[in-house]
Amino acid sequence: MGVKPFTLSVKVVIRDPDGRCLLIQRAASSRGNPGKWELPGGKVTPGEDLDQVAQREAGEETALTIQLRRALGTAQAELPGRIVVYLILEADWAAGEVRLSSEHQAYVWRYPHELLEMDLVRHFIPFVKRYAAGEV
Amino acid sequence: MGVKPFTLSVKVVIRDPDGRCLLIQRAASSRGNPGKWELPGGKVTPGEDLDQVAQREAGEETALTIQLRRALGTAQAELPGRIVVYLILEADWAAGEVRLSSEHQAYVWRYPHELLEMDLVRHFIPFVKRYAAGEV
Repeated sequence: MGVKPFTLSVKVVIRDPDGRCLLIQRAASSRGNPGKWELPGGKVTPGEDLDQVAQREAGEETALTIQLRRALGTAQAELPGRIVVYLILEADWAAGEVRLSSEHQAYVWRYPHELLEMDLVRHFIPFVKRYAAGEV
Repeated sequence: MGVKPFTLSVKVVIRDPDGRCLLIQRAASSRGNPGKWELPGGKVTPGEDLDQVAQREAGEETALTIQLRRALGTAQAELPGRIVVYLILEADWAAGEVRLSSEHQAYVWRYPHELLEMDLVRHFIPFVKRYAAGEV
């Protein structure tokens, strides 16, 4: 039927004690969506629980230690060879200060209602609209 | 911090050519939620793509062949020892007739706006409300 394969990625809304959320900006040299803002996260590796996935991905991209709280929703992106489903989780900042990897060039902490002011990776916008409106 | 571990399960809204959705009723002997209606699905096994997970779980619980379409949203259930996050996907019926496993005792096909008339497993109700309202 010509439908592309689906793969799963996890993204995390990390909140600081004031309720602000972490956004990170993709490097100018990124192949996809250079300079756009997104949530930390990454591919689900076989054999991991969600806690482990979220901890590892947040650690790799932000150096933060986090505490998973709840599932928020989904997003989806169609790539040339596959469809990526994003499972979006909410976590609390638990320890550490942000240190980015070479894949990202900047970060900001923003209250939920401010997130849409950033130039987001397009496929997260429907989710962020719901989150900013307090619908999840 | 005393927070429970999170595990991931996939559930599938399977639609027939008329746009009706498949609900299946848990066996009266089920330990959890006996007699309640739910979506087919199950745990994500390490190393599988989402297509494989959805195909396998739908096959085990309904004997149907399906074609995955898109991500719809999430649900969450707090159990004594863990929190289960449900990733809910939409798929089209592709082939076969429903044959249930011993874990379920009945099935129905219902249009989205009729789903809330069934006695659903409680933790799917917020998602089903959104789906029935055409919000996803």
